[in-house]
Amino acid sequence: MSIITLTTDYGLKDHFVGALKGKILSEYSEASIIDISHYIDAFNTVEASYIIGSAYSSFPKGTVHLIGVDMELNKENQHIAMQWNDHFFIAADNGILSMLTQKIVPQKIVAINIHDRLPSDATDLDVFVKVACHIARGGLLNVIGKEIKTIKQVSDFQAVTANDGSSIKGYVIYIDHFGNAVTNISKKQFLEIAKGRPYEIVLRTKNIKTILPNYSAIASSEKYPLKNYEGEKLAIFNEAGFLEIAIFKSNPSKFGSANSLLGLNYRDVINIVFR
Amino acid sequence: MSIITLTTDYGLKDHFVGALKGKILSEYSEASIIDISHYIDAFNTVEASYIIGSAYSSFPKGTVHLIGVDMELNKENQHIAMQWNDHFFIAADNGILSMLTQKIVPQKIVAINIHDRLPSDATDLDVFVKVACHIARGGLLNVIGKEIKTIKQVSDFQAVTANDGSSIKGYVIYIDHFGNAVTNISKKQFLEIAKGRPYEIVLRTKNIKTILPNYSAIASSEKYPLKNYEGEKLAIFNEAGFLEIAIFKSNPSKFGSANSLLGLNYRDVINIVFR
Amino acid sequence: MSIITLTTDYGLKDHFVGALKGKILSEYSEASIIDISHYIDAFNTVEASYIIGSAYSSFPKGTVHLIGVDMELNKENQHIAMQWNDHFFIAADNGILSMLTQKIVPQKIVAINIHDRLPSDATDLDVFVKVACHIARGGLLNVIGKEIKTIKQVSDFQAVTANDGSSIKGYVIYIDHFGNAVTNISKKQFLEIAKGRPYEIVLRTKNIKTILPNYSAIASSEKYPLKNYEGEKLAIFNEAGFLEIAIFKSNPSKFGSANSLLGLNYRDVINIVFR
Repeated sequence: MSIITLTTDYGLKDHFVGALKGKILSEYSEASIIDISHYIDAFNTVEASYIIGSAYSSFPKGTVHLIGVDMELNKENQHIAMQWNDHFFIAADNGILSMLTQKIVPQKIVAINIHDRLPSDATDLDVFVKVACHIARGGLLNVIGKEIKTIKQVSDFQAVTANDGSSIKGYVIYIDHFGNAVTNISKKQFLEIAKGRPYEIVLRTKNIKTILPNYSAIASSEKYPLKNYEGEKLAIFNEAGFLEIAIFKSNPSKFGSANSLLGLNYRDVINIVFR
Repeated sequence: MSIITLTTDYGLKDHFVGALKGKILSEYSEASIIDISHYIDAFNTVEASYIIGSAYSSFPKGTVHLIGVDMELNKENQHIAMQWNDHFFIAADNGILSMLTQKIVPQKIVAINIHDRLPSDATDLDVFVKVACHIARGGLLNVIGKEIKTIKQVSDFQAVTANDGSSIKGYVIYIDHFGNAVTNISKKQFLEIAKGRPYEIVLRTKNIKTILPNYSAIASSEKYPLKNYEGEKLAIFNEAGFLEIAIFKSNPSKFGSANSLLGLNYRDVINIVFR
Repeated sequence: MSIITLTTDYGLKDHFVGALKGKILSEYSEASIIDISHYIDAFNTVEASYIIGSAYSSFPKGTVHLIGVDMELNKENQHIAMQWNDHFFIAADNGILSMLTQKIVPQKIVAINIHDRLPSDATDLDVFVKVACHIARGGLLNVIGKEIKTIKQVSDFQAVTANDGSSIKGYVIYIDHFGNAVTNISKKQFLEIAKGRPYEIVLRTKNIKTILPNYSAIASSEKYPLKNYEGEKLAIFNEAGFLEIAIFKSNPSKFGSANSLLGLNYRDVINIVFR
């Protein structure tokens, strides 16, 4: 119970991430600190949700996930700590954790109430560090907060199935490092609705008729080398379980990406139409 | 005494930072290596000073801070190691450490003289690694250098108070990841001069009349949600103790930052005028 | 035998690198994980070769190097693990490791064959993690693969000496963080051919007549401060042993780099002509 992960929008140029690690090690020198991302789009809680939701399951049970995005304590957002699926999450109650709780009921949530016990110049980050180290050491949530039953919800991660089951309407929730466009349509939802029917993924300007098992499967013919397929569009379910529109061997700076070639941007609508 | 922090302008694309860590672990396998920043503007010693000066205090006493910015040994810059405020710093004597020594007198400074004891193909970085591991293991400064009394000074961190106390003239020393502009006007200097008088912060095109206790305090009315205040300019003292001109929920790529919206750039003048 | 290094083209915005570390720590909690680079140009195996070839020797013998570039298992690229120069490398057999094997004969290479032993939803990365942790724990290569004798070769790292020894023709294989251009001409090759003769490095638009022992050696006169030489072009052998065309105190965003000032780009030809 000694891994603490960090997910923030601080970037890596400033001293913030280094200072955060210094504070954690000052408080709990045996912590094993792992960066998930520090390049969350500034204050973008949807992006933070997608990233933490995609990363947590790679860590051992008991890992503590500190999320430093839109975390200033204010009249709208209190600080919370949550035990969920045997992992621990510390964040502001701004909707970031609702992607998780929409799938699995949390084991316990507390509103953090240790602010008064810290020095008067303690920052919001100091509060998170204190809580993270407390939990990483095996401390109980009740010691650092008061139990609450609900947290703020965001609906961004729910793709919508048509009433007659003829289509699923989702949208782009994330553009990844390769310029591939990740949608909010999950493999689970797709399989439940598709029931083996043929389908077409309707993009802004072009359609895709097959979801591939992996990128290299774009090479439909054994005759040609993979090189011949570079730059072709394709769809797969990524390892986080979401439909991804990609370009084979995508290199944004060289020959373009789903983002640039297909004109797919954050929040753009993607439809899957069944026949 | 086993944390070694790294602050460089090497960037994270090249192999330099990874190789540096490999060298440290080869020399001292128990070292706990923490990155402060590798995106210091190339050869920018003022920026390096601000970052290390803002980060060091989050680490435990005894931490060794290796600064790899403008570090090539040459006729102008010797290699130095300094014990200061119970932390250790290794750098070239190019002014980087003077931000620290202007505030607190160093406990000891040595000019590193182990160059001759290393293999002939040893690089400047090899020297720093050797010294860092020596100190991290608890070794004495006298073993790796000859005591000196003074280091090079830069005056960049001193904002100027008018003789009649009517104003403080500072300038922008750093643009952070959010595009906020950090000035060289410290909270300490401000409080000493202001003595409770009303004031106005004069920017290039606009003025600010209040320094807020935190970002969310921009929401002056309880009636409106915080969302209504996004994009508004504000001033706070950041956690490093310097006056920062910011935009509420600043996102440089979305609706702009203090840097882009207010036209504030590195080295721009900021005046605080008292009435 | 517990360091695992990571070299990928995943970038640091997505959750991939964090998740990879989580998987490694889940499998082998004592692993010491060190990033070499996650900003390899997407699918660029030449760049990956240069980076890993320049970094590995800074790590202790027995280190495991995981290379996640163009690693999807497909009809052209199998997964391999190699013991070489007392280090271990895990990669797809896409030519990445041939820069190493062209210099020193490998101790052992295996084609990884544990894919069937993993859960059916295991990804290519899961395979690499399993193998990396097995080796880091001291496990044998034969347990996770079948010995093979040859791997794919790329010829990109061989600069060509003219038949009459009058010149060496190489090209730019890497533009570094400072905008300096690294060529595939090694110090070893240069010394063998030059035999003390005078030479000229012929660039696209300008020539350089001396390879300096270090950057600051550009200051040919003791009379002037180093500042006077900022922005001047120079050539050195970098710490990886390759000829580098650089600008003194290069800062790409301020006054330009070898890349921008001299018009040197990836794959551009560089000739050394002897007289």
